[in-house]
Order: sequence, then structure tokens, then C-alpha cells
Amino acid sequence: MPITIDQIERASSRIRGSVLRTPIVRLNTDTDMEIYLKLENLQPTGSFKVRGASNAIALAGPEVKSRGVYTCSAGNMAQALAWQAKQNGISCSAIVPDNAPETKLRAIKRFGATIIQVSFDEVWKVVTTHRYGPLEGSIFIHPFSDPRMIAGNGTIGLEILEDIPDVDSVVVPFGGGGLTAGIATAIHERKPTTKVYAVEPETAAPLAASFSSGRAMEVKRIPSFVDGIGGKSVLPEMWDMVRPLIQGSIVCSLSEIACAVRLLVERNRVVAEGAGAASVAAALTGKAGKRKVVCVVSGGNIDTAKLSEILSGDVS
Amino acid sequence: MPITIDQIERASSRIRGSVLRTPIVRLNTDTDMEIYLKLENLQPTGSFKVRGASNAIALAGPEVKSRGVYTCSAGNMAQALAWQAKQNGISCSAIVPDNAPETKLRAIKRFGATIIQVSFDEVWKVVTTHRYGPLEGSIFIHPFSDPRMIAGNGTIGLEILEDIPDVDSVVVPFGGGGLTAGIATAIHERKPTTKVYAVEPETAAPLAASFSSGRAMEVKRIPSFVDGIGGKSVLPEMWDMVRPLIQGSIVCSLSEIACAVRLLVERNRVVAEGAGAASVAAALTGKAGKRKVVCVVSGGNIDTAKLSEILSGDVS
Repeated sequence: MPITIDQIERASSRIRGSVLRTPIVRLNTDTDMEIYLKLENLQPTGSFKVRGASNAIALAGPEVKSRGVYTCSAGNMAQALAWQAKQNGISCSAIVPDNAPETKLRAIKRFGATIIQVSFDEVWKVVTTHRYGPLEGSIFIHPFSDPRMIAGNGTIGLEILEDIPDVDSVVVPFGGGGLTAGIATAIHERKPTTKVYAVEPETAAPLAASFSSGRAMEVKRIPSFVDGIGGKSVLPEMWDMVRPLIQGSIVCSLSEIACAVRLLVERNRVVAEGAGAASVAAALTGKAGKRKVVCVVSGGNIDTAKLSEILSGDVS
Repeated sequence: MPITIDQIERASSRIRGSVLRTPIVRLNTDTDMEIYLKLENLQPTGSFKVRGASNAIALAGPEVKSRGVYTCSAGNMAQALAWQAKQNGISCSAIVPDNAPETKLRAIKRFGATIIQVSFDEVWKVVTTHRYGPLEGSIFIHPFSDPRMIAGNGTIGLEILEDIPDVDSVVVPFGGGGLTAGIATAIHERKPTTKVYAVEPETAAPLAASFSSGRAMEVKRIPSFVDGIGGKSVLPEMWDMVRPLIQGSIVCSLSEIACAVRLLVERNRVVAEGAGAASVAAALTGKAGKRKVVCVVSGGNIDTAKLSEILSGDVS
């Protein structure tokens, strides 16, 4: 079920003060393209997920205190939920894939959450079934299809329009689709002439496949350092939600994404994880237009060793 | 001559829109200290210097178009002035030391300025004499003692008080003293109970020496990756200006500063150069207090190879 602009606006008032009103800065490149960065990597816990997590916990009702919450996540959702749960004295569990980066796992532990590490396929099963037997007494907050999460994500769209009212296009990293759905809903309602593009890595691009075939698709997925986006499939509920709101999915190579990680460090002095830099890689292809393109830098949680490798020029 | 709060307020209106209103974020540490980061590394050209440069060029009068501008700088001032000059169609020259990082030199060239590379001692001579013979037809903008620069820097102090009205202390990287003078003036005028501390690297700490001896001192200076701060001496005019406004200078080791660079990447997903991370290193010593300490992260212009080395754990 699509969310409404009212839900997004109420989320915006609800989370104000508990998350960062992130800045938009110009990408410092030598090209004549006008590219901007919405820096969600500056959020507490290093990703946009705190917006939805704050909104979801605020709306979870009083029983959340006794029951606790859980989610399934490549790491950013788990960190954000654990952080927000800790601030509210709520217990939290996270089902994470066994290839989650160390930096994300350490942070989840720092916020006191219980980690349940399983295979990617088992995590994905929780994603598609919206349940995990052993934790059923606890309240499940779906990492991307929960409307409270999507409404929280949509606040990014409102802020983009506040800062750059004449934005031509917005590029959003596409994992489960919750970030894209939230932002695209806000943009579509408030400035329907602005185009929204998703971006996926070539190693896991189910949305591009779905646009090609006209229906929600599952694809073969190759794990990579771009761990925050690139699922096995687009959930039908997310496909129905995003299809009418966006132009399509721009697919980038791992090497293009690694170059974007490096560019963001060297020219704008910020650290983006693969997913966060993917929007910049997509914008630099020119496929999202050349004027007033806003890239959502969704997060910055990359392992130090991987970052160091990318900075040394060893892209993979 | 001290600058006034009026000059700072006028600078604030003057530069609005041409520089970034930078965010303040909480440092994500495991300590119970409450440390905040004023992220000047997110500015165009990667340092706070754009504030003063924008203010100085706006105030330079109409003859600046025909005469052009020049400065002497370890790199950040030159980049900022070159960037601002380029936007206004003004020619710009920069006298830089031969150990300036490549990343700073490349950026100065990108903005179309002429680079004059000389020894550190020769640069320092321009700093102390306020002139460089071969460029005398052009307008000199001193990198730190020019009142237009100091007023621009002071706008950071106003913004800190806007965002955290009950700030207990502010830690400022001390190179020439212009950043410290500007911020300390704003804080002193607006909230005199807030303490301001300078920070210097142990390899070049003339301000700490000056506080010890009660007069402006020259010291032996060892070059290091902390190139944005740490001069040979405190100019008497700067000593007179900052002495009554600040508590003293916190001296940090290179290894403490390298750890802070790494911490900022790993926990807050931002890149700071040595000077920019020095304020965080100082705050983490506890010498600036433990509650509501704002660190000015003055810039992010560090060579990629050096950053990669620090991230690999090879501190120097």
C-alpha cells in the first residue's frame, strides 16, 4: 500500500531533533555537470536508516517496551534500530547475513543489540516472509517495506526540495526499495516534474531486470563490497509502489562505484560505503541528466581495510 | 587591532549563500564525553578558509578586478582564495611552501591560480612582513591576520552558539591564529562563560611556548603531516589578540592526531586533515572538559596516500 505525503510530513515533525537535518553540498568535480550530495552518511550510525527507525519506534506503541524489537538487515538498519532502541530503553535483536562488514557488526554490538548471524538466503527469507519464528514475541520492523520506515525515508525528499527547489533529478541507491519509495513519493507529490532514478550494482540488479520484463523479478546475486544495496529480488509490494514513481534503474559497475568512493574522499572529504557512492557513480554516467542532479549518499559504513584498498587504487 | 562582533555579523550576512552553513554532529565514541564536530571540512575547497576569502574579496573594492589578489599559504588559504577569485573573474597567485601536499597544489591549479613554490622560511617571511616584492602590484590578503579573514572565521563562532547555545568549550586548531581569534571573539562577546582552547601539534607549538613565557615566541618547528597548523612563531599582533580570549594551547602528539583522523573516518565518516583532526585529539585528552565540547574540524585536505597509511595503522 503506497504511503501518503501526510505520513511523510508527520514523520518529519516526529523525528526532528533526534536525527540530523543533513546538508546538501556540491560535488567538487572538473566536469560541467551540476551534481549535489545529500549527505545521509553524516547521520548518527552512519546511514539514512535512523530516520525510519526513529519514526517506527515512536509509532510502535507502549507494548514495545516489554516486547522489544527486531529486524533483518545487511547492517545499517540493524545499527539504526539498535541505536534508537537503546536510547529508549528497548531491547533489540538483529538478524544479519554472515558477510556483513565488521564495522557494521561492531556498531550493532556497541548499541547493545543481540546479533543473530545467518546465511544471506535465510536473511532474505525473513525479508520476504516478514517473520522469524524464534523472535515472534518481539515486534518486527521490516527494514524497507514497513510504512513507518518508508515515511521516515520520505523526509529526505522533503529536505531536498527545501534546499534545491528546482532540482531536476534525484538518484537513490536501491536495495529493498524503501528509500526509493519514500523519496519518490515525496518528490512526486511535491514536484512531479523532478525525475527520480534508482541505482543498482551490476552484481545484483533485480530492479533493472524488473523494468526490463515489466514485473517483479528475482536475479542471480553476486556478493560484493556494495553490501547495502543489491537484493536477490524486488518484492512485489515494493515493485508496485516504486514502478509508477521512478524513471528506471541505472546499473553501475563495481569499478565505477569504487571510483565514486574515492572521488568523495578526495574531493568532498566524506566517506561513503559502496551503496552510498553508487548514486554518485550513476550521476557521473550522465544518465540522470546534467543539471541539478541530487545524489542521495545513503550511508558511510564501509570497513576501513576495504576503504584503504579502494584509496590505494585496488578497485574490485 | 582586535576585530568587533559587528564585523563578524556583517561578514555572516555577506558570505551567506556563497559558503556552506556547516552542520554540527556528535562524535560517535564509546566514552561518556559529549564531543561535537563543527564540520568545516565539508566547505567548498575543503576548509574553513572560504569564509574569510569570500568576505575579503567582497570587501576588496573595485580595483581588485584589475590588480588581482595573492596570498601565502600551506595550501588551504590558497585554494579558498583561488576558488573565490575564479568565481569573481579575478586573477590570483599563491606563495606556497615546497612541502605543501599534492592534493592542495592540484586543487589550487584546478581553480586557475598561479603557484609560486618557495621554502617554508620564505613563505614565513611573507607571513611576517605582509609583502612579497614580485607581486606588489597585486592586492595581498594575509592568510590569518587580515581582519576580513578573521571576521569571516568568526562566523563559525556565531553558528556554534546558534546550534549549541549551552556549549561549554570550543577547541580550535591554531596555525597563524586567525581562526582562533575570529571564533574566540564571537564566543567572548556572545557567551563569555564558554571556554576557548587552541590546539597545536607537539612538533610546532609556538602558542604553548608563548603562554609559558608570557610573550609571543618563536620555536623550532619540525615539518609533519599536520601541515595546516604549526607555524614557526606567533606573530605579536596575533598574540595580543588571542591571549585575553583563550584558556591556552593543548599540545597533541602526531600519533594522537593520526588516531583522531582514523576515528573520524571510522565513526563519523568524514575525512579530516591533521590540523582538522587535532581539535578532536585535544578534546579526547579531556583537557577541554567533558561536557558539550565543540571541536572545529577546520579542513579535510589530506593526501590520499597519507590517509591510506593512517587507516592502515601506520601512524607517524
